[in-house]
Amino acid sequence: MHWPRRIEFKLKANKMDLRRIGEFGLIHRIRKWTDASGPDLIQGIGDDVAVVEMGSKALLVTTDILIEGIHFHPSWMDPYSLGRKSLAVNLSDIASMGGIPKYYLVSIGLPKNLPLSFISSFYRGLKQEAKRFRVQLVGGDTSLSQKIIVNICLLGEGEKKNLLFRKGARVGDDLFVSGKLGDAALGLKLLQKKSKIKGSEGLIKKHLFPCPRVELGQALARDHVATAMIDVSDGLLIDTSHLIEESGVGALIWEDRIPLSRLYRKWVRSFLKDPFQFALSGGEDYELLFTASSDRREEMTSLTRMFKIPITRIGKILPKNEGFRLIKKDGKEDLPSPLGFEHFK
Amino acid sequence: MHWPRRIEFKLKANKMDLRRIGEFGLIHRIRKWTDASGPDLIQGIGDDVAVVEMGSKALLVTTDILIEGIHFHPSWMDPYSLGRKSLAVNLSDIASMGGIPKYYLVSIGLPKNLPLSFISSFYRGLKQEAKRFRVQLVGGDTSLSQKIIVNICLLGEGEKKNLLFRKGARVGDDLFVSGKLGDAALGLKLLQKKSKIKGSEGLIKKHLFPCPRVELGQALARDHVATAMIDVSDGLLIDTSHLIEESGVGALIWEDRIPLSRLYRKWVRSFLKDPFQFALSGGEDYELLFTASSDRREEMTSLTRMFKIPITRIGKILPKNEGFRLIKKDGKEDLPSPLGFEHFK
Repeated sequence: MHWPRRIEFKLKANKMDLRRIGEFGLIHRIRKWTDASGPDLIQGIGDDVAVVEMGSKALLVTTDILIEGIHFHPSWMDPYSLGRKSLAVNLSDIASMGGIPKYYLVSIGLPKNLPLSFISSFYRGLKQEAKRFRVQLVGGDTSLSQKIIVNICLLGEGEKKNLLFRKGARVGDDLFVSGKLGDAALGLKLLQKKSKIKGSEGLIKKHLFPCPRVELGQALARDHVATAMIDVSDGLLIDTSHLIEESGVGALIWEDRIPLSRLYRKWVRSFLKDPFQFALSGGEDYELLFTASSDRREEMTSLTRMFKIPITRIGKILPKNEGFRLIKKDGKEDLPSPLGFEHFK
Repeated sequence: MHWPRRIEFKLKANKMDLRRIGEFGLIHRIRKWTDASGPDLIQGIGDDVAVVEMGSKALLVTTDILIEGIHFHPSWMDPYSLGRKSLAVNLSDIASMGGIPKYYLVSIGLPKNLPLSFISSFYRGLKQEAKRFRVQLVGGDTSLSQKIIVNICLLGEGEKKNLLFRKGARVGDDLFVSGKLGDAALGLKLLQKKSKIKGSEGLIKKHLFPCPRVELGQALARDHVATAMIDVSDGLLIDTSHLIEESGVGALIWEDRIPLSRLYRKWVRSFLKDPFQFALSGGEDYELLFTASSDRREEMTSLTRMFKIPITRIGKILPKNEGFRLIKKDGKEDLPSPLGFEHFK
């Protein structure tokens, strides 16, 4: 890549590059550079979903980019799965606020020699996922590209008073997570090995077809069952740290309460010495992580029954000065690190 | 690139690829595959802007992806210009409906070794353009990528009854275009030659800093001064063909009425035998192309004065069966072809 002279000069003056600051350092700087605030803006950059006032309702907008070789590889991700997943990860962002997803746009970059059947399978996947969650394709852009690129922008709506944010957790609240954790990360490892191991298909499916918890998210937001919420996309630890940072609190997680699937327990030992690592930091679970007052535990039991999704109490919210603590299975305490996935680092 | 077995099989069964159908063929198929329609949807895919009902107003959404090596190259596009332009092309889409741009999200893919100063200049450009048109950054996504990728999603609003579409042109209407055409395409040629030719900077500027006609678009939509509108992004001929196709009419353009700048006239002969080619098919002008009843010609004069933007009558709308005709400077008639820029072809 050749930069014009003026850029090269700046490079010398400022040797700082993306590896030094990582994805979250970059987002922090973008917030500063762009000075994003305004009268109608309920929530701006730094969060997964933007929220703007639009009459009596709130308009939710989220966007996610998937790039071949970074987020997926065609050797282990077929176009149908790619279509479904690229919409699912955005649906999960709207779910994490308790919003109602409505419309989406898709920008795609495609290599010239890509067979049309690849693209039609991709759109079949998109359509399938869209139908399931009653969202509608309204627009997009297409371009030539060396690598396959998919960018989805998903719009949703919600009642302003019912939306959940990362902020809002209070000291003494319980910390809950939906579903099971770690399956998707383990499924990815299995996919990358390419040798299909009989009996592990369930884990691969969890990687290719995450199930955004849209209805559960809406139920948790209605009547403020939960106090704060985020979806687990980068990993349990890193997403918990986002939630407690925005809420200005600390937290404690009991490792042995983290919900693991039967398949995860069976296969994880083939890849990891620490069987909790994928569940803690693997990412791509697209489950809901949320806090609620301890007098609402019974409601969690009925929500589990209603939606047939396990809801597990894995920790509690502490005062900020007690930090973020992980109680390991053997009773020892740990300060969680490394936290999870971050681009550029 | 290695496709999984199943894809290779499909490749044999269906040899059709993107080169065969081109960008517009692809968009046509996406429309079919996804079957996009719905009760709140005023305008869906196939157009540059999606329009959905949101209470009493209309919500406008548009998205554009820019990819290094396809839409720009760092050797001739500095990051500040890239920031401004990537927002400007989306603003032009909202302008072409007479909408009010409001919020935007930006997804970026960035190489690991990119200096931070590149990214801060990019955001400085974005911020500058955003400030000028009073739009606000509300969110986005960041990812590692081999090539620089920018995807912007811009949201706007408008009064439903005041919006302009590609459809709406009536037989007998005049055909107008704002500004001058061809400068941006000629500027690109000069940029790509890399040798800065003294006196040609104005053309290069037109390529790097297109001026979206947001206020003019709104004025043309108010009180329905215009009957149909589109922005000239792919080229005058191809965008005229979109407008007349959607309106179900034909059109005639007088070549010698196409507005050319003094600089264009001066430099075009160094690159082209036909001096009209860039103005007809170069693209990236981001001017407004619109139709209006012939009894509104006087209003065009006052709009030109008000916004200090030339508005030129370049043709008229014909019945559909008379097709699309270009009257060449020498009086001969031409059926316009090739039409302009199309991806994948």
